[in-house]
Amino acid sequence: MALIVHKYGGTSMGSTERIKNVAKRVAKWHDAGHQIVVVPSAMSGETNRLIALAKEIMPQPDPRELDMLASTGEQVSVALLSMALQSLGKKAVSYAGWQVPIKTDSAFTKARIQSIDDARVRRDLDEGKVVIITGFQGVDDKGNITTLGRGGSDTSAVAVAAAMKAAECLIYTDVDGVYTTDPRVVTEARRLNTITFEEMLEMASLGSKVLQIRSVEFAGNYKVPTRVLSSLTDPLMPLEEEANSGTLISFEEDTHMEQAVISGIAFNRDEAKITVLGVPDKPGIAFQILGPIADANVEVDMIIQNQSVEGKTDFTFTVARGEYAKAMDVLNESVKAHIGAASIVGDTKVSKVSVVGVGMRSHVGIASQMFRTLSEEGINIQMISTSEIKISVLIDEKYMELAVRALHKAFDLEKA
Amino acid sequence: MALIVHKYGGTSMGSTERIKNVAKRVAKWHDAGHQIVVVPSAMSGETNRLIALAKEIMPQPDPRELDMLASTGEQVSVALLSMALQSLGKKAVSYAGWQVPIKTDSAFTKARIQSIDDARVRRDLDEGKVVIITGFQGVDDKGNITTLGRGGSDTSAVAVAAAMKAAECLIYTDVDGVYTTDPRVVTEARRLNTITFEEMLEMASLGSKVLQIRSVEFAGNYKVPTRVLSSLTDPLMPLEEEANSGTLISFEEDTHMEQAVISGIAFNRDEAKITVLGVPDKPGIAFQILGPIADANVEVDMIIQNQSVEGKTDFTFTVARGEYAKAMDVLNESVKAHIGAASIVGDTKVSKVSVVGVGMRSHVGIASQMFRTLSEEGINIQMISTSEIKISVLIDEKYMELAVRALHKAFDLEKA
Repeated sequence: MALIVHKYGGTSMGSTERIKNVAKRVAKWHDAGHQIVVVPSAMSGETNRLIALAKEIMPQPDPRELDMLASTGEQVSVALLSMALQSLGKKAVSYAGWQVPIKTDSAFTKARIQSIDDARVRRDLDEGKVVIITGFQGVDDKGNITTLGRGGSDTSAVAVAAAMKAAECLIYTDVDGVYTTDPRVVTEARRLNTITFEEMLEMASLGSKVLQIRSVEFAGNYKVPTRVLSSLTDPLMPLEEEANSGTLISFEEDTHMEQAVISGIAFNRDEAKITVLGVPDKPGIAFQILGPIADANVEVDMIIQNQSVEGKTDFTFTVARGEYAKAMDVLNESVKAHIGAASIVGDTKVSKVSVVGVGMRSHVGIASQMFRTLSEEGINIQMISTSEIKISVLIDEKYMELAVRALHKAFDLEKA
Repeated sequence: MALIVHKYGGTSMGSTERIKNVAKRVAKWHDAGHQIVVVPSAMSGETNRLIALAKEIMPQPDPRELDMLASTGEQVSVALLSMALQSLGKKAVSYAGWQVPIKTDSAFTKARIQSIDDARVRRDLDEGKVVIITGFQGVDDKGNITTLGRGGSDTSAVAVAAAMKAAECLIYTDVDGVYTTDPRVVTEARRLNTITFEEMLEMASLGSKVLQIRSVEFAGNYKVPTRVLSSLTDPLMPLEEEANSGTLISFEEDTHMEQAVISGIAFNRDEAKITVLGVPDKPGIAFQILGPIADANVEVDMIIQNQSVEGKTDFTFTVARGEYAKAMDVLNESVKAHIGAASIVGDTKVSKVSVVGVGMRSHVGIASQMFRTLSEEGINIQMISTSEIKISVLIDEKYMELAVRALHKAFDLEKA
């Protein structure tokens, strides 16, 4: 018998029929003697419907009121799932974030969890109840409802699992695990049985959308064993089989001794590149360029500054494509003349491709293998960025699929 | 400058366009220097949508979970109205019942308000904010969300007005006040400028659907001046005119010294009559008949027991038509043989017509005037029931409209 947290996404909760299936699956786990806490998302489409209503009222709604509004979607879900479990004869009780309470800071629409009081939930579990807690939301110290931002239900589930020292957090979703790369790009892509927390963090931050990155950080910080698995299987499939399906995000370093050097190929199409040319190379120049960009709430990803030639250098960075125009405006209006740059150029037709793997730490030659593979395919590398467990390159977007397929093959990822 | 509570029904909140109109109206009152608390209902159709979802899950959902679900409708409303006020440049803040808090007992789906803490709201008002509070709901002492039952937003508004000692509670609705009778039955029906609390209570309990009866009781207990007025007028109509429109439910006895003897004619089509014939007339017989009826949660309205003849009497009472079959089953299965009744007969084609007015207290002859009028129209009276300020008769439903029109004319109600 173990305490296990289940998380179900909006698609899994998308209709009353689907909610009944979720209840069957949860009841199966409870029947096996486990204590179960469930964290469901809002029914698919519901959060968008609510936000559309708000936008009809005003284009930029107040964040506090937006959270008041959007948090209702998850409250509907928990109540319906509780009823569905009761209709199967289970004792069940639903809670909104403030009832647990899940305490957060007051950063409305993107709040961060500060603490979770598990006393009430634990009492219910000890009484044999299934406890259902709203994802995505909490309450600040003034009693205002907050939300964690899009995808926040993953974070809620992992945070609840951490607070309650759950044996495992099962993230049920519409994919059946984490793959070596996107199967839509490489048909030979293979599902990983396990992935380390650090690899998952890189995969998530590099554009692999299986889990929200903050939930991965949370899982890492609190060492919550987290499994990504499918909610589309038969809810009554044998529990043993289900418990070992999907991909486990693990914190046991030694289980990975035999693992492949590279775990997967991540990619991100949503990149745009900006280069400030002919910048005088003197202290503070990076801040003078990126400070105004940050002030405009534009997030910067890769950053490169070349060796200067004759006291001048070129400064390049990437942003999300949707923020390219805003970033260019900021540079042209507030930065260019101020720092005496020669010109500013950009390109929105670029993509990032990354190889990720903890094995990289102890194996030389990964970078050269990657660069050789791309070179053999005639793909020019525009920027390079590295961390301990990943190497990312920026390339022309038209070569992205080719690059991913070539690298997947070069690192033998189709083989288990 | 006064503290005023506004309540808006589901129709007034039925779309984002209508919510914007509500905001304009509220802003107008705030601009005039008043402190405003608004209690809106859920958007029309929303509560029904949510309950339909619950019924798809199970026919008899758990009341606690039903409240968790249904309370989201009002939370959506308050957030949207707060945004709409902000878009007009007003400072506004929305609260769910638990945030105020509005404390209730734990009778889920039909909770009763126990206390309202106005500290937080008053602080906001003093800071110049419009405060928007969810109707229909509260929180029990264990932190569970409760709802007050259908129409509970009226009660919330009056309760908030009572707790805050508001100068007036304005109930904006899709009728423009309280009429001497239903204008669809009597075209000469006249809107009353004022009505006493007790008359309103009788009108509400006798089937006039303008205000929920519990809200009228609340208004009476706490002497909250309450006005029913139209939300369909131009939101920017002159405030003075709006402030004197509709019908004021008043507690100033002396303002009614000159008032007509009868204020209005109420009626209720939703009646069914049951008679237990040949009952041995001995102590406890009324309880033996009505006890099992109450245990089956059937509400009884009029009750008559005739003088006994030769130790036998007939016992008659009325119930809502939808509960007639259930009541008959209970009597035939659990009561008839037990008390030795001769037979049980019933009629679902009956209606109740009532004349209401505080002036009745000091005027004799109202009853005889009523009975004569009905007699002149050839309408047979099946049952009679009276209180200090009303006389009700049960008649064949096919004469109901005729009776209402005849009485309206007989008591000169078309004249101001």
